[in-house]
Amino acid sequence: MEAIGERINGMFKAIGKAIKEQDASVIQDMAKRQEEAGADVLDLNVGPAAEDREAAMRWLVESVQEVSDLPLAIDSTNVDVVRAGLEVCENEAIINSTTGEAEKLNAMMLLAAEHGCSIIGLTIDEEGVPGTAEGRMEVALKLLTAAMEHGIPTDKLYVDAVILPVNALQDTPPRVLEVISQVSMLADPPPKSVIGLSNVSQGAQFRSLLNRTYLVMCLARGLSAAIVDVLDEELMDAMIAAEVLMNRAVYADDFLKAYRK
Amino acid sequence: MEAIGERINGMFKAIGKAIKEQDASVIQDMAKRQEEAGADVLDLNVGPAAEDREAAMRWLVESVQEVSDLPLAIDSTNVDVVRAGLEVCENEAIINSTTGEAEKLNAMMLLAAEHGCSIIGLTIDEEGVPGTAEGRMEVALKLLTAAMEHGIPTDKLYVDAVILPVNALQDTPPRVLEVISQVSMLADPPPKSVIGLSNVSQGAQFRSLLNRTYLVMCLARGLSAAIVDVLDEELMDAMIAAEVLMNRAVYADDFLKAYRK
Repeated sequence: MEAIGERINGMFKAIGKAIKEQDASVIQDMAKRQEEAGADVLDLNVGPAAEDREAAMRWLVESVQEVSDLPLAIDSTNVDVVRAGLEVCENEAIINSTTGEAEKLNAMMLLAAEHGCSIIGLTIDEEGVPGTAEGRMEVALKLLTAAMEHGIPTDKLYVDAVILPVNALQDTPPRVLEVISQVSMLADPPPKSVIGLSNVSQGAQFRSLLNRTYLVMCLARGLSAAIVDVLDEELMDAMIAAEVLMNRAVYADDFLKAYRK
Repeated sequence: MEAIGERINGMFKAIGKAIKEQDASVIQDMAKRQEEAGADVLDLNVGPAAEDREAAMRWLVESVQEVSDLPLAIDSTNVDVVRAGLEVCENEAIINSTTGEAEKLNAMMLLAAEHGCSIIGLTIDEEGVPGTAEGRMEVALKLLTAAMEHGIPTDKLYVDAVILPVNALQDTPPRVLEVISQVSMLADPPPKSVIGLSNVSQGAQFRSLLNRTYLVMCLARGLSAAIVDVLDEELMDAMIAAEVLMNRAVYADDFLKAYRK
């Protein structure tokens, strides 16, 4: 599984402050900590408070790629902010994210094609998040068609089936599992599947338990990637154990250490 | 999920000693502890050391049903030992287990039909454990056919796809997941699926982590029941979280406490 580290996000107080004060050391320290903890990709989100979000994203990308060669997920719903990040990004990049809404979909896919990068697509369209697995799959097909029309290889699309908090909508987690299973059958090579894990436990007790349990469930259904808190050690232990049990990571007696290198 | 408590087994030293010395209080205490910890069924196995295994099984059944109304899994590969247990069993009973080997299959199915009880069938035949998911499904079909021929309702059959230690045969855990998915499509109502969980981690480090991770993976594929150590609190927490996330247990803020009542 690709672990996309979620911790460089202006929503977190210390990161928001560092962005505002252009204190690169805080950002770079968090990049290195996540890489050491097993992140395969680093997500970068300037957060809601940044005044000039395009400048902030450029600065984030430049700061992080000074200390890490990991792929960077340029995380914004705004096309101009994503473009600003991509223009200075020398590491591999992933656009995070588009939706299935026609105008945004076209603009984000154009950017992905131009920069030859991967793109995360949320199963959301003009009507919102479909309530059923079938509805989400319809949007997934729309995302796939758009990728193909823009000449983007099918396996550069990550379908995000939009997990919602289990305490608000308890029928969502099993539906998202269905979508994860089905995404792997959509094309050859198939699109990847991804979830923004922490959302499943928003507002709930036992968040870490819910997060790692749901991540393991998703892996059993074939999940390719997840945006996670890689600094949650129990979460990473569960992920590694699941990778070993899926026969996707080689068994070693100390498989936790072996996986982390 | 039905949690079948594995701890009343003569293989464990204290239990073996209690069976030998006919010390019912040790057995009854373990029955009550497992029931309190969330067991839905209690497995009873006299172990390898008992001299008169039929007498020992009768005594185990009688001792346990004095203190618990839970269904009892009469656990032996020997038809006479199973019969001895069933003859004195007043609680609901499950035969644990038959294989697909013709002679044993017929004898155990006759017993299940006669006593109107459920039966666990291992996907093992005269050739041993099939190496592939397809091979295991062929034996599962043989088990199902035998149940139907004996007039046993299809949902009184539990198919056990025989999990083997991940450190010895790492391709087994994903194959068993495949079988679990497919068993639920075999008939209407479908047979149940079950695993003897602890076997996945036999001889490995981090046994509890491997056990709970694999249990959650199996639940994400539709597992109906598992023979587990219900006294492993982290295992039970993971199971409860998975049941909530599958929308099979109602969400409550303190869902761990709510589930355990």
